[in-house]
Amino acid sequence: MTIQTAVLIETLTALGAEVRWCSCNIFSTQDHAAAAIARDSAAVFAWKGETLQEYWWCTERALDWGPTGGPDLIVDDGGDATLLIHEGVKAEEVYEKTGQLPDPSSTDNAEFQIVLTIIRDGLKADPKKYARMKERLVGVSEETTTGVKRLYQMQANGTLLFPAINVNDSVTKSKFDNLYGCRHSLPDGLMRATDVMIAGKVAVVCGYGDVGKGCAAALKQAGARVIVTEIDPICALQALMEGLQVLTLEDVVSEADIFVTTTGNKDIIMVNHMRKMKNNAIVCNIGHFDNEIDMLGLENYPGVKRITIKPQTDRWVFPETNTGIIVLAEGRLMNLGCATGHPSFVMSCSFTNQVIAQLELWKEKATGKYEKKVYVLPKHLDEKVAALHLGKLGANLTKLTKDQADYISVPIEGPYKPPHYRY
Amino acid sequence: MTIQTAVLIETLTALGAEVRWCSCNIFSTQDHAAAAIARDSAAVFAWKGETLQEYWWCTERALDWGPTGGPDLIVDDGGDATLLIHEGVKAEEVYEKTGQLPDPSSTDNAEFQIVLTIIRDGLKADPKKYARMKERLVGVSEETTTGVKRLYQMQANGTLLFPAINVNDSVTKSKFDNLYGCRHSLPDGLMRATDVMIAGKVAVVCGYGDVGKGCAAALKQAGARVIVTEIDPICALQALMEGLQVLTLEDVVSEADIFVTTTGNKDIIMVNHMRKMKNNAIVCNIGHFDNEIDMLGLENYPGVKRITIKPQTDRWVFPETNTGIIVLAEGRLMNLGCATGHPSFVMSCSFTNQVIAQLELWKEKATGKYEKKVYVLPKHLDEKVAALHLGKLGANLTKLTKDQADYISVPIEGPYKPPHYRY
Amino acid sequence: MTIQTAVLIETLTALGAEVRWCSCNIFSTQDHAAAAIARDSAAVFAWKGETLQEYWWCTERALDWGPTGGPDLIVDDGGDATLLIHEGVKAEEVYEKTGQLPDPSSTDNAEFQIVLTIIRDGLKADPKKYARMKERLVGVSEETTTGVKRLYQMQANGTLLFPAINVNDSVTKSKFDNLYGCRHSLPDGLMRATDVMIAGKVAVVCGYGDVGKGCAAALKQAGARVIVTEIDPICALQALMEGLQVLTLEDVVSEADIFVTTTGNKDIIMVNHMRKMKNNAIVCNIGHFDNEIDMLGLENYPGVKRITIKPQTDRWVFPETNTGIIVLAEGRLMNLGCATGHPSFVMSCSFTNQVIAQLELWKEKATGKYEKKVYVLPKHLDEKVAALHLGKLGANLTKLTKDQADYISVPIEGPYKPPHYRY
Amino acid sequence: MTIQTAVLIETLTALGAEVRWCSCNIFSTQDHAAAAIARDSAAVFAWKGETLQEYWWCTERALDWGPTGGPDLIVDDGGDATLLIHEGVKAEEVYEKTGQLPDPSSTDNAEFQIVLTIIRDGLKADPKKYARMKERLVGVSEETTTGVKRLYQMQANGTLLFPAINVNDSVTKSKFDNLYGCRHSLPDGLMRATDVMIAGKVAVVCGYGDVGKGCAAALKQAGARVIVTEIDPICALQALMEGLQVLTLEDVVSEADIFVTTTGNKDIIMVNHMRKMKNNAIVCNIGHFDNEIDMLGLENYPGVKRITIKPQTDRWVFPETNTGIIVLAEGRLMNLGCATGHPSFVMSCSFTNQVIAQLELWKEKATGKYEKKVYVLPKHLDEKVAALHLGKLGANLTKLTKDQADYISVPIEGPYKPPHYRY
Repeated sequence: MTIQTAVLIETLTALGAEVRWCSCNIFSTQDHAAAAIARDSAAVFAWKGETLQEYWWCTERALDWGPTGGPDLIVDDGGDATLLIHEGVKAEEVYEKTGQLPDPSSTDNAEFQIVLTIIRDGLKADPKKYARMKERLVGVSEETTTGVKRLYQMQANGTLLFPAINVNDSVTKSKFDNLYGCRHSLPDGLMRATDVMIAGKVAVVCGYGDVGKGCAAALKQAGARVIVTEIDPICALQALMEGLQVLTLEDVVSEADIFVTTTGNKDIIMVNHMRKMKNNAIVCNIGHFDNEIDMLGLENYPGVKRITIKPQTDRWVFPETNTGIIVLAEGRLMNLGCATGHPSFVMSCSFTNQVIAQLELWKEKATGKYEKKVYVLPKHLDEKVAALHLGKLGANLTKLTKDQADYISVPIEGPYKPPHYRY
Repeated sequence: MTIQTAVLIETLTALGAEVRWCSCNIFSTQDHAAAAIARDSAAVFAWKGETLQEYWWCTERALDWGPTGGPDLIVDDGGDATLLIHEGVKAEEVYEKTGQLPDPSSTDNAEFQIVLTIIRDGLKADPKKYARMKERLVGVSEETTTGVKRLYQMQANGTLLFPAINVNDSVTKSKFDNLYGCRHSLPDGLMRATDVMIAGKVAVVCGYGDVGKGCAAALKQAGARVIVTEIDPICALQALMEGLQVLTLEDVVSEADIFVTTTGNKDIIMVNHMRKMKNNAIVCNIGHFDNEIDMLGLENYPGVKRITIKPQTDRWVFPETNTGIIVLAEGRLMNLGCATGHPSFVMSCSFTNQVIAQLELWKEKATGKYEKKVYVLPKHLDEKVAALHLGKLGANLTKLTKDQADYISVPIEGPYKPPHYRY
Repeated sequence: MTIQTAVLIETLTALGAEVRWCSCNIFSTQDHAAAAIARDSAAVFAWKGETLQEYWWCTERALDWGPTGGPDLIVDDGGDATLLIHEGVKAEEVYEKTGQLPDPSSTDNAEFQIVLTIIRDGLKADPKKYARMKERLVGVSEETTTGVKRLYQMQANGTLLFPAINVNDSVTKSKFDNLYGCRHSLPDGLMRATDVMIAGKVAVVCGYGDVGKGCAAALKQAGARVIVTEIDPICALQALMEGLQVLTLEDVVSEADIFVTTTGNKDIIMVNHMRKMKNNAIVCNIGHFDNEIDMLGLENYPGVKRITIKPQTDRWVFPETNTGIIVLAEGRLMNLGCATGHPSFVMSCSFTNQVIAQLELWKEKATGKYEKKVYVLPKHLDEKVAALHLGKLGANLTKLTKDQADYISVPIEGPYKPPHYRY
Repeated sequence: MTIQTAVLIETLTALGAEVRWCSCNIFSTQDHAAAAIARDSAAVFAWKGETLQEYWWCTERALDWGPTGGPDLIVDDGGDATLLIHEGVKAEEVYEKTGQLPDPSSTDNAEFQIVLTIIRDGLKADPKKYARMKERLVGVSEETTTGVKRLYQMQANGTLLFPAINVNDSVTKSKFDNLYGCRHSLPDGLMRATDVMIAGKVAVVCGYGDVGKGCAAALKQAGARVIVTEIDPICALQALMEGLQVLTLEDVVSEADIFVTTTGNKDIIMVNHMRKMKNNAIVCNIGHFDNEIDMLGLENYPGVKRITIKPQTDRWVFPETNTGIIVLAEGRLMNLGCATGHPSFVMSCSFTNQVIAQLELWKEKATGKYEKKVYVLPKHLDEKVAALHLGKLGANLTKLTKDQADYISVPIEGPYKPPHYRY
């Protein structure tokens, strides 16, 4: 719920939507943006610094149009709204068949316990709430790598309840927002949180996907010596071609100054790594979930002390050495927690994709074009998103002649590339 | 026919192949490499500085195993061998039905006239030569953007005569050879041909695909101010995000010092552009065919004078202004014509893909796995190619735990990415 | 008065000094740092957001140890304390001779009017205050390009009242703080003030000295297209060698998105330039004084409207077009006004020079080594400053053998370069 | 004796000089340039691939105008002509006093033995040759770091025989030729000699002065991981600020792929280092003399085998391991030996300084302005050199107003910077 999403909400409203909104991250709300939207445009359930309970309460509230309404479309970012509905429907079905309520103690995952609790608590009062939502829903458009991964898993399992458009894999999203957005916002977050001089430092970037590429580029350009950790040999070879060293975290844990996780995986930096770091090493995550960093292990480490320098900037001191590390945004997205997320230009690319996806889902809602599967936007729409952003930057595009278009077997007006093209 | 292809030939020979070889470009042969291979390993039909007639004579010779033999597999680079066989088969079929020979004068394209002449001249002596080749051929593996485009066109038209593996679109080919290879070889070619100082100059890169990205990066890093021309709004937006100006050729034709075509299209720099360039502007092509630059228009320009500074470096002087431009490698691939092509490390990535494709075609020759279609190598082989090259560069890859692999739903041993992943 | 100066104050105090402190810029104080120092270490006269009156009141207060005390040494940054004393002494001498008080209306410069007013108002009460200061003062060490320029002017005019050490021209100051400090703090200030995406934008950097070099590098690396304006042909040629375009402000005023002044001169961006800029062009100064930007012309432009987005970020709307520009920090140092100045590591280099200069002045106070002239620190001390900072960054220095040292005619332990060496 | 020096010779000739010329390096002559000059413009004593004997014979020949003539001015590059005259004069004086001839066996240095032999052999025939030269000589202008160091040593010892202008320390020489010239020519030499892919490799740059800075920048930009060795803590800190690792050669000798010496010192890479290198590690020097690399130690290593891949590219195989290293240009300047030296644009800056220095020496030959000391060109001439090169690159310089010039206390027409300014 940033100023950029505020403009997205205003856009959707101008297109005729009635919007209810929540945040996708406990730290990412800009309260001034939320206030302006709440006043003018939409119901907003979001503030900076929610607890996890509050976060899921907000998510549930945002989905609740009352007994006769409900969302027709979901604009998702991370997939939590989609998750809640799927889990809600699953629980309602079990309840209907067996009378059994979901049991939060059935999972170790603290956050998922909250999800189950929220569903359980609402289930008796309205045992068909999520079923009604599912019926009404035309579809979801999702914009993150993580959220999309969940959608493909549900598609593979046959459990996806409504059509989904994967906006993340529009080129104008993943190769712009993830890459250039993070190239901007990683140093921004580091500077605002710590004022550390990046030049001369040793920085470890865990993961060299689009987000990792953006982070590594930013750190290298600012004068850091960058070391990449990777599991994928292709991405590792890309890092090497850019002059970056590829090592394991164990190789460098005690000599680096800055650690950034970008993997989309979990258990990347564990408390046993953190114990070996230099005093005042900076540890942060820009790769979606806070479980990239072992925050639980850190919090439960015997004798560890947390000293909050300022909100979203904590120093954790280990008892053996009395040295400490600096953890940003409690392991959550540091660019949203410590800075203001991605700048408007790149978010405009992402959100234009979202709006196009929403329009597409709505337009085709009765045609059966979209089944309960995951789709990407067709390439000509991807190219359209790019074209809409060229003027602002003063670009002059060259036009193909008919003859040239025929020669490379593409329509004059595009799309210009085969589907497998990687940009 | 460079030292890198020499090692490829030796590899194929060591794997049991009997090899006949020709070049893919009239200027790209390294005669010492050709000589060594001719002595030790294979029949070679290639030398530096062929005429077009000689070039196609070589191609035809390389395919000719005598009446009872023939190629089982083709390793293609640009698709000319594949083209010759397809055109040969077509002509034989027409001849069989109608007794009509191919007519070189039926086309304006000077090079295609040569192709038809060669087929015509062989047709009476052996009217089933290409038909026998087609029958015998297990398949082709092709490594260039241009050659692959032709294959997909033939697949779309239903005219593809045997299975084809598209090696170009292995990530470890197109995102390495095309990108990092050209980042290396473009300045190499410029320096060897002209000794021009790149720093401070204005350079125009036509096209911002993988090749264009590599060229633009090289020129920018060497201190040039780089301007990109593009037809594709997505690639144009990528150029802008890297700080490059995107304009049309017309906008900058009279102020730039260096022009590079990388498009894979034709008619990019026309003689009317060249007339407007500054004195001693450098014009070159690294994007496959010499028709990116209007060489024909240049040669036929009334009163133009060609002064050969040294082989592959010509100054063309226009009569009106008595100023001239410098054209490299007669408009053909300047990195092969003026330097030595791509360095061994990146060619090793490409050729490992070629060898794997050849092994795969041969292994499956009787199983029917490959139809008369175009295939890409499966991702785990692509990752294998990368993995084979990490040790040389001192990389330490991180290993997924079972738990992590499950969390992101990939096998521990890979492949690690979905098919649509763009790297 | 930032956290870095706080540590400097603590260092000076630990060395035995009694410290009084004021800021060098109305926006640059970090109030938490000022508060901590005021509580623990020194008398502080500084807060974020002073008026000019308050600023000079603070300067005067910081110099006032009461009738029997006074500063022995000045640590100056910009030269305002030194200016006040020199102007005070001048006024006292005129007053003693002629009984005439300084006349603030004798100058057009609003800020200098305040200086004269402060001196005038104190003069009757204590007509020997600045004379006593001058007598007592052992010297000043000054760290900015601007402050040093004033000192050399006074040396040339024969009006310098006490010895001065030019800390700015220590290599470890000007080639680090000015260059790498600004490379860090310019994007930091831009991001915090405006959240603008730098990638893809056209940025004009006025001046390509050390500060301009740092700014241009930062903007280029962040993906902007950078244009430099310069008066000095050597610096202009340096910019060209880095691939930057060199044009005049007039050439580009209406097409750029971001304007940064770094010249140390005045009247660089005038209101007539600002009127021609694109809507929401960003205008800022990182080159010492706010008169690089014609703030006076802007404020007095008929019908102009100032809209304060947030402190230190103003939108100025012109009446003719109803479009506006965004001016940072009211034309004052944007990195101090909109961000937190330079990071600690590079300030440590600068302040180590300051401390060494203070120690040197004090040690030699009775020896006559330093006359009323401007000195730079000897090169071995400059090298020492660098050496003290290598360990933090994990560097291993190579040691000369005796034989090698003799071969290049330097002492084994340094200094290693002739005085004219430019690094 | 490259094409750039050919144009310099033509320039001097056009200005009225009679020129005799030799090379400054046994490998650096471009024979076509030498031939053209020998035909049209000057007496040339230079060819590619001289022996050391031939080299000094050429030097001696170039200085010999016959009994009644002699050089009025020397354009020196490395200082060998100046050295020969100084040693000649010294030997003549000893001979006159004592009748003793120089004894080549008095030195271990093989090259200096040749110098003494040449002097000895000429001494009896003409015992006043160098004395006459000394008398006639108006002065020398010298353009290299190494040559200038010798001049300052002679000045310090009081042995300098005629005025010298240090052209190397013109900003438009040392900060352009040394820095940007090597940034261009180092990769050029590497590519031409070895075709090695620089991306992904580990490169060690010994020395981070202007030459080292250019080399490190080139290698980093080409995708290498660069490690710097330094003795000077200031230069080391600069390297760190650019993200380069600073280590000793011992730290990295066995893991790097490319080694470049740039120090101007001797004994940088010894045979004991070379023995520990990886197979096919590349070793080269771009820092003036071949004694940066222990060529003597290598040649004399028991059992070592030298395999000449091609001229100026040798593989040296150690007997213990049967692995080898690749040494470029026999340890001499690799950019001149393996490529064509620096490109014309940057040489034009250097040679404009040379020409201006020659004009200045000649103009003032009778005025006594220049004593037997070393001088640098005044800054306004340095700025003029830069200004003369801006037009070619399309730059638009900004002009100071009178008011602005007064404000920063410089003349409107320059010079714009104080003498100590470092650019």
